Amino acid sequence: MASISYNRRIERVKEKLSGDKLNAVILFDPLNIAYLTGFDSASACIVPLEGNVEVIVPRLEYFRARDTAKHCEVVGYSTYESETLSEEKVIFKDLTATIIELVKENISKGRVGVEASRTRTKTLEKMRSELKDYELVDISKLITDMRMCKDEEEINALKEAIKVAEEAMGIAVELSREGVTEAEVASEVLRTISRKGLLWSFNPIVASGPNSAYPHAVPTTRRMSRGDIVVIDLGARYKGYCSDMTRTIIIGEKDSKYAKLYNAVLEAQVKAIEEIGPGVSAAHPDSIARKILKEKGLIQYFNHSLGHGVGLAVHEAPALSPKSENVVLKPGVVVTVEPGVYIPGYGGIRIEDMVLVTEDGCKVLTSFPK
Amino acid sequence: MASISYNRRIERVKEKLSGDKLNAVILFDPLNIAYLTGFDSASACIVPLEGNVEVIVPRLEYFRARDTAKHCEVVGYSTYESETLSEEKVIFKDLTATIIELVKENISKGRVGVEASRTRTKTLEKMRSELKDYELVDISKLITDMRMCKDEEEINALKEAIKVAEEAMGIAVELSREGVTEAEVASEVLRTISRKGLLWSFNPIVASGPNSAYPHAVPTTRRMSRGDIVVIDLGARYKGYCSDMTRTIIIGEKDSKYAKLYNAVLEAQVKAIEEIGPGVSAAHPDSIARKILKEKGLIQYFNHSLGHGVGLAVHEAPALSPKSENVVLKPGVVVTVEPGVYIPGYGGIRIEDMVLVTEDGCKVLTSFPK
Repeated sequence: MASISYNRRIERVKEKLSGDKLNAVILFDPLNIAYLTGFDSASACIVPLEGNVEVIVPRLEYFRARDTAKHCEVVGYSTYESETLSEEKVIFKDLTATIIELVKENISKGRVGVEASRTRTKTLEKMRSELKDYELVDISKLITDMRMCKDEEEINALKEAIKVAEEAMGIAVELSREGVTEAEVASEVLRTISRKGLLWSFNPIVASGPNSAYPHAVPTTRRMSRGDIVVIDLGARYKGYCSDMTRTIIIGEKDSKYAKLYNAVLEAQVKAIEEIGPGVSAAHPDSIARKILKEKGLIQYFNHSLGHGVGLAVHEAPALSPKSENVVLKPGVVVTVEPGVYIPGYGGIRIEDMVLVTEDGCKVLTSFPK
Repeated sequence: MASISYNRRIERVKEKLSGDKLNAVILFDPLNIAYLTGFDSASACIVPLEGNVEVIVPRLEYFRARDTAKHCEVVGYSTYESETLSEEKVIFKDLTATIIELVKENISKGRVGVEASRTRTKTLEKMRSELKDYELVDISKLITDMRMCKDEEEINALKEAIKVAEEAMGIAVELSREGVTEAEVASEVLRTISRKGLLWSFNPIVASGPNSAYPHAVPTTRRMSRGDIVVIDLGARYKGYCSDMTRTIIIGEKDSKYAKLYNAVLEAQVKAIEEIGPGVSAAHPDSIARKILKEKGLIQYFNHSLGHGVGLAVHEAPALSPKSENVVLKPGVVVTVEPGVYIPGYGGIRIEDMVLVTEDGCKVLTSFPK
């Protein structure tokens, strides 16, 4: 797989700067910075209209950042003086003062965009008071909006992340049986993902019996027994891109109560996916799932929204939720579709796939059997 | 091990409220809330001068929070209306509006403390404008200060977390040999910790060869070979309490360059630990380590501070850093002591133990051989 074209993304940002008459943008969101640099642990980043992107990192991250974001300048900061290596560029100031110094040094006076909602009030106030020659403009949505529609490179990375997640799911499903603990299953999920050199998108959920009624259960040493429902929710992160999937199984034979609940959730999921396509409101698939679960008398057990965008963050825009009426799905958007019902004391059922919005409808990227 | 006495902690907070003439405090920091409730995924928490603590969670976390924080009232919130179960208490508002409603309903007019630095500017502004009958006072340090000195229960939990970390370290050291990848070693660390039903304090670091020169390296599929330095940094979380330890080894025989560096770091660590005790400035042990590394001509390779407090958070107050001159160590404080030297292209060495400040000096809690 080809590497990610960070320079092309930076060019797109610079075009926006030019259009919006901004001399630079200052980013604070680590994943927005990773989108342009490949380095996901920066404190801030300055993208100027002309010249190199500056990635600002705590001093101890200087070399890792420099070796990762080779197309950028890296600047370390440290709040106390100490001897450095000749190859290190370190400013002995706090983060805010470092940004102020770099802006004054490198950015022409005038309009500068800032991810205002991603930083502290105190940082913003100090920047406003010390950068009097600059007009600071809130551009909190600039990179977030760019990230919403995935290009081919990103979709390929997501597919790779899904492949590893499905391998881990196969192991988890096979291992889940009488006498095994949730934690043992979760540990094999982590092992499977991490031994390939991938990180996990989030701490895997393996929830059995009554624990499966907690949507965000944490694996425990509870041993599974016959008749237990088991919810397994996991994901892997490939080149920064997250997968996210859930399967629900029962230990032993399916009884009619479980089958009825499972089929209701599956129907809600399938029907919701059928409605996904370009031009559709992000609230619409959620409303379809809700309608089906209401018809089955289960709506009071569905205590979250239908799904969420997924990319560099495991939860990102757009939300498939009743609140997303004014958000329109576009080709390249990737969302999870994950209806669930959770019955306190009994258990829960959730089924989750990742779905890509295409030019003429959608494509389910997750292929693991349901 | 006895369970954590959350009620006693809440009583201590209420005593402070009484002393400071506050009718309630509103907390936002998830770990500060966990300190009082045992639930680490809440959005906010209200501790009134009299009556029950209210834990505010996204609706989908309602039952998990209720079953975890049995000594508290739990309130779910959801930004859209939906049918609920009769046992659920859900407010159909956003987080800020939910807090405002609960304060108006349950808290007498007057002074109310708020963890101002742990929430968004917009949340604070809305609270200020809609809670006109209340004087909102910044109490951001209240719980953080309480958390700094650990009691016996907490020290026991930390010891248990160290025990599991040491087991994982034993496996990691044994497994690290020619031909094995960093990721394979890291995966066994995760497996060892997670199959006991524990979470890890942070993503384990297994960094070999030149990668060991990155203090915060992420495990890769690089295969270890003879002469590689390997830095292994890991921790486990028991009842919420984190351990954190680092060991450095070399694959094959020690050469004189490695031995010299290793011994310098070890000497810096041992001498720094000797200085730790009650009444000592938190900057002092750092200055001792710095002095030794400077004498050895290595100070330019030490690119971070000496250590940090550790408890519910893997990094918490106090920092052992040149910036901590005015922070005084007290009995019950637990810190890491982790000097390191990092030589770009060659490798790095870090040795890290956890140290408890006692009544008359200190005690090294980590017992793994160095």
